[in-house]
Parts: sequence; structure tokens; C-alpha cells
Amino acid sequence: MGPVSARTTGQVRVVGTGLLGTSIGLGLTSLDVDVVLDDVSPSTLALAVDYGAGRPATDDDAPALVVVAVPPDVVAGVVAAELTRHPQAIVTDVASVKAGPLAALEAAGAATERYIGSHPMAGRERGGPIAARADLFLGRPWVIAPHAGSVPEQAAVLEALALDLGATPVRLPADRHDDAVAVVSHAPQLVASLLAARLIDAPDRATELAGQGLRDTTRIAASDPALWVQILSANAARILPVLSDLRDDLDAVLEALADPAARGAQRALADVLAAGNDGVARIPGKHGVDLKTTTLTVLVDDRPGQIARLLTEIGELGVNLEDLRLEHSPGAPIGIVELAVAPEVAGGLEADLVTRGWRIA
Amino acid sequence: MGPVSARTTGQVRVVGTGLLGTSIGLGLTSLDVDVVLDDVSPSTLALAVDYGAGRPATDDDAPALVVVAVPPDVVAGVVAAELTRHPQAIVTDVASVKAGPLAALEAAGAATERYIGSHPMAGRERGGPIAARADLFLGRPWVIAPHAGSVPEQAAVLEALALDLGATPVRLPADRHDDAVAVVSHAPQLVASLLAARLIDAPDRATELAGQGLRDTTRIAASDPALWVQILSANAARILPVLSDLRDDLDAVLEALADPAARGAQRALADVLAAGNDGVARIPGKHGVDLKTTTLTVLVDDRPGQIARLLTEIGELGVNLEDLRLEHSPGAPIGIVELAVAPEVAGGLEADLVTRGWRIA
Repeated sequence: MGPVSARTTGQVRVVGTGLLGTSIGLGLTSLDVDVVLDDVSPSTLALAVDYGAGRPATDDDAPALVVVAVPPDVVAGVVAAELTRHPQAIVTDVASVKAGPLAALEAAGAATERYIGSHPMAGRERGGPIAARADLFLGRPWVIAPHAGSVPEQAAVLEALALDLGATPVRLPADRHDDAVAVVSHAPQLVASLLAARLIDAPDRATELAGQGLRDTTRIAASDPALWVQILSANAARILPVLSDLRDDLDAVLEALADPAARGAQRALADVLAAGNDGVARIPGKHGVDLKTTTLTVLVDDRPGQIARLLTEIGELGVNLEDLRLEHSPGAPIGIVELAVAPEVAGGLEADLVTRGWRIA
Repeated sequence: MGPVSARTTGQVRVVGTGLLGTSIGLGLTSLDVDVVLDDVSPSTLALAVDYGAGRPATDDDAPALVVVAVPPDVVAGVVAAELTRHPQAIVTDVASVKAGPLAALEAAGAATERYIGSHPMAGRERGGPIAARADLFLGRPWVIAPHAGSVPEQAAVLEALALDLGATPVRLPADRHDDAVAVVSHAPQLVASLLAARLIDAPDRATELAGQGLRDTTRIAASDPALWVQILSANAARILPVLSDLRDDLDAVLEALADPAARGAQRALADVLAAGNDGVARIPGKHGVDLKTTTLTVLVDDRPGQIARLLTEIGELGVNLEDLRLEHSPGAPIGIVELAVAPEVAGGLEADLVTRGWRIA
């Protein structure tokens, strides 16, 4: 990231040197911030220190900011202990759920005026300090969740942390954060798992017909069950109504499928499909802007360098891609590249690519 | 596609000049096959002729092969009429469901010894002759569904057709085809729609936190409801058990979410997540081979030419990509490119890219 000066001032203490904690340490250390590390596991701590995420904590530390990066089921207890142990410090956590820890801290009479929750929307399929990267948070939203008892200056400290790590700060109260991730993250995780589970007993000939649709709808079903059980349990009350509504709609679908010739059955299926159209249209495009794009489909030979040549030529034409998707071609040496571009450049790009000999589908 | 000689011999009659029928006509015409076109809509037919998909049908036609490319709800009737009208021809259809039309033909006493069903696994979000492309089927599976009464030579005729259009022929009986698409295509479509529908009432702040997981799980929810109502209705009996099983698992999830501290609740959630792991592992990789790949995540500046430069360098290194994904970066000028490569080249590629100055996450 080069010699950039940090917005974060003072010492930062990171408690929990797994994927997130170690990544935070690596990012801050690269900006010459003084980072001290702690973990219940001496070997995990030693690994994070070896990776250069900071130095081991000592009794003489005087952190200005404590970042608690421990599993969801112990986060409130660790935050409370840190608030007591470092009475001058602001304490934050990075757990995937925010309302539960806050309520637990308030119930325990913790010094919540120095606590402010946060949640970097970043992760990897692998965990632990070995998987950590200083760049983990680059370009990702980092939710900062002020509460009634927190001071505005604390949110500014957290925003500085997020910006130092390349993330985009988003302020959102704890309950609204938890409502949001229930619908955009937790429910999709469970639905992908439920759908992918249908493939366990499918014959090979069936999965051989799998297209991009099946791959996309089930990709996140490969996530770590142990971590997700904790996340889902901690936000269960907010996921429940989302999936209950889905179940009600699913029941209508099942009824329609049981007798598709019955009065109203076609309408019931059409309603679900149309609602899906409306829902997916609400997902913003690149950079958080609700950008409409036009998709061009280009057919390329499946050998090294073909996609590079395509993208080089698109770059020469000065066109920026909003999205790109490489589609598999079961059994055939053909690649299908879907390019999403701004509508106003799509026509010209298609003509230019055809002129250059590309096959547009 | 260049001056390649067709495997298909004799005249081909295409009935229904929508997206699929017109695309078949365009592909065959480019190979100098004699294609005659028919459609209940004179204006749709005229459009397909204008696009170069073939010439209008006349009473003097003597097709060797008739391809019926009409909506699912009328396909059996049209196939029966064609079998009667052209007693020397092999008749196929391209509908997304295969068992229903065959049963209807047999029940009607049609000359099914000359009928063989097929299903090219290709489509676009737009329909009609204007959306048609000669390349539509390139690299896609084309299911050919022989039945007890069909003659082996007919499957060879259909395979020639599929190969002429660049598709990969896959032989599968009608009932097994319909079972397969129920689980790999129809159930995922409905599940994506049901999940996307949850976003309709989500606040903007929630959808702004959307990541690639939500985008992937809901992408196909943008499909055309009118077409899908027909497909789902025609295969309802085979989709029903898939989604009923999903509903049973969903009920277990809902029970666990309602009281995550109850005995067995954590286990219930873990079981669903682990089953998702097992299911997604059954999806074959590129080219229908169950290829294990290693993913490298590269951070690139979000400006024209960066991804092209990356892929050019990967091409220079002689590495073939198994998959590529460009991830959105809400609010930040950073692109995240996920490269899937064969495990044996991943380590060397990562080292080479770092040497060349790329940031690997």
C-alpha cells in the first residue's frame, strides 16, 4: 500500500488473532501503527506475531483502541473484560451480529459509553492467522454501529480504522445492521445450503447438466458450517421472519405444483417469479450505485490468453467493464464471456468487437 | 464458423421461429443446409426469414428432419401434426420438458417411431427471432431423449444436428432428463425467485450491504415469468418432491432458529450447512470433469485495462484459467478478481504474480 500515513492514532490492541484480527494487525502495522496482539491460544498469537501483525501484548500497554475479534459466542464477555482492563480505551468488536453483544453489555452494566460495535463485510473460506491478509478489507463495506450511549467521536475513530484498512465505512445502528445481514447474508446462506443439499442424491447425469444458474445459486453453500452455526444462532430471531415468509411463499408454490391445472395455480407461480424479478432489481450495481448495464456475450476459444486478448482490446477501446462472467462450457472447448457495460457504450463496443473478429452471441 | 460442411443431410423444417427455432435456422443456413421455416405468426415468420434463418415453408417441401420449437404447452399437438403432415420425416422438439410430450403423443396414437425428443440447454433472457444467434448452442449440452419406440439412427440424426450447431450431445431418456432438470434447473429457478422476493421490502441500507453471495444466489430470479410458468407447470410432478424435501429441511431450520438454545438446535443448523457442503461438491467443474481448482484472489485498480493486463500476464505465464470471477467493490475503486486454476500451478502462479507486482489477497 506504500508509505501512506495512518489516520489511526495511538496504540491499537487486537484481541483474537484469527483471520480478521490478524488481517487488521497486518494492515495497521504496514501503516506504522503500534499494534499489540492478544489471544487465548499462545500458538495462534505466536503465529500472528511471526506473520508481522504486531507485537505480543504486555502489562505496560496503553491502547487508545481495542479491537475484539473473537468468535460471536464469546464476544460480549471479552468486550466487557477489555472495557474494564483498559479504562481509557475505545473498544470495538468485528462480529457478524451487533444487537446481541450490545444488549449483553448493557445488561451486565459494562461501560458501554466507550463501546461501539462494527462489522467489516469481509471474510474468506479459510480461517486463522495463516489466511490473514493486510488487504482483506479493501473495497468492502465496514459497518459502524453507534448506539444511544456512544459518543460521536468514537464513530470517527472507527471510520479512521476502516479507511486505514481500505474499507468503506457505513454507519448503521446495531438492530438495523442485524436486520440487514439477516436478509442479504444469513438467509441467502441457509437457502443456498438447503438448495445444494438437493444435489446429494442426484444422479451424475443430472449434475452433468448443471449450468451457471445452479453454480451461482449454490456457490456459498461451500462455507464453513462451524462458523455459520454461531452466526445464524446469534441472529436467529431476525432470520426467522425472513425464512418464515419464504416458507409461506414456498407452500404456495408447492400447492401450485401439486395441481398445476387447478384454478389459480398458474397465477401463484407467476406471482412468485414476478416477485423474484422485483426483488433482484433492488440489488445495487457496482460501487453501490443502482447502475443499469447492458450485457454482451462473447464466445472465445478455451485456451490461455484468449480472454486476456479480449480484455486488452476492450481496454484499447477505452471501455470500462461493470461486470464480467466466465461461463463454463461442459464438454466443449468454447468459453462464454459475459461483459456488462454501461448501456451507452454497448452498441459501439459490440460493433467494434465484431469488426475485430470476435463472435458475439 | 467458416466454410465447414454440415453433418446434417437433407431438408430441415423448423416450426416455430422464436429464439430457439430461429437460432437453429441461422446455424444450419450458415452451413448451407436447406432450411424451411413455419410459424403461426406471419410477422414472426417474416422476421426470421429476413434475419436469414431459412426460406418460408411451401407445400412442396420434403423435410428429412422437422424441428418443433414452440412453447411447452402446445408442443405435443404440433409434433403430432408434423408427424402426420411429413410421413417420411424424423420429428424432434426442443422443449425444456420431455416426458409429458412423449406420453401425450403415445396416448394420441401418433407415429412416435419417427419422434425423438431433444433439449438444447441454451437460452437468453430475451426471446423472439430478433434475439436469435447462430452461435446460441455453442458449447452447451444438447440432450437427446430416445424412447422405447425410437430407432437408433434417429439419435444419430439428432447428434449430427447438435454437433452442427456446436453443442455437445448428451443421450438421456425423457424421464431421466426431466428428473435432472427438476433438480439442476427448475428448483434453483424457484428458490432464487423465492429468495429474491425477500428483498422487495428490504430497506435501501440493507441492499447496499449486498455482497457477491446475494448477487449469485439471486441472479436467475431475473428470468422471464411467462416462460417459466409453462416450464414449471409442465414438470411440476418432478419439481414437487425436490422442493418438498427442501421444505422439510427448511422447517427444521425454522424450528432451530425459533429456539437456537434448545437441545439439538445447533446440530440441526450444522446438519443443513454440512449437507450444503456435500451437495455443492457434486457439481462438476469445467468441461463436465470433476476438476478440483485452487482460487487466487487478486486486487486490481478499477480502471480500463487492468484486468486485461492481469490476464495477459497470466497468458504469458502459460496458465489456463478454469474460472474467473470479478467481484464488485461497493463504494471503492478496487476490483477483486478471483482466479480458479489447477492446484498444481496455483503456487507458481501466485509467486509469479507477486513478482510482477500484483496484490494477492
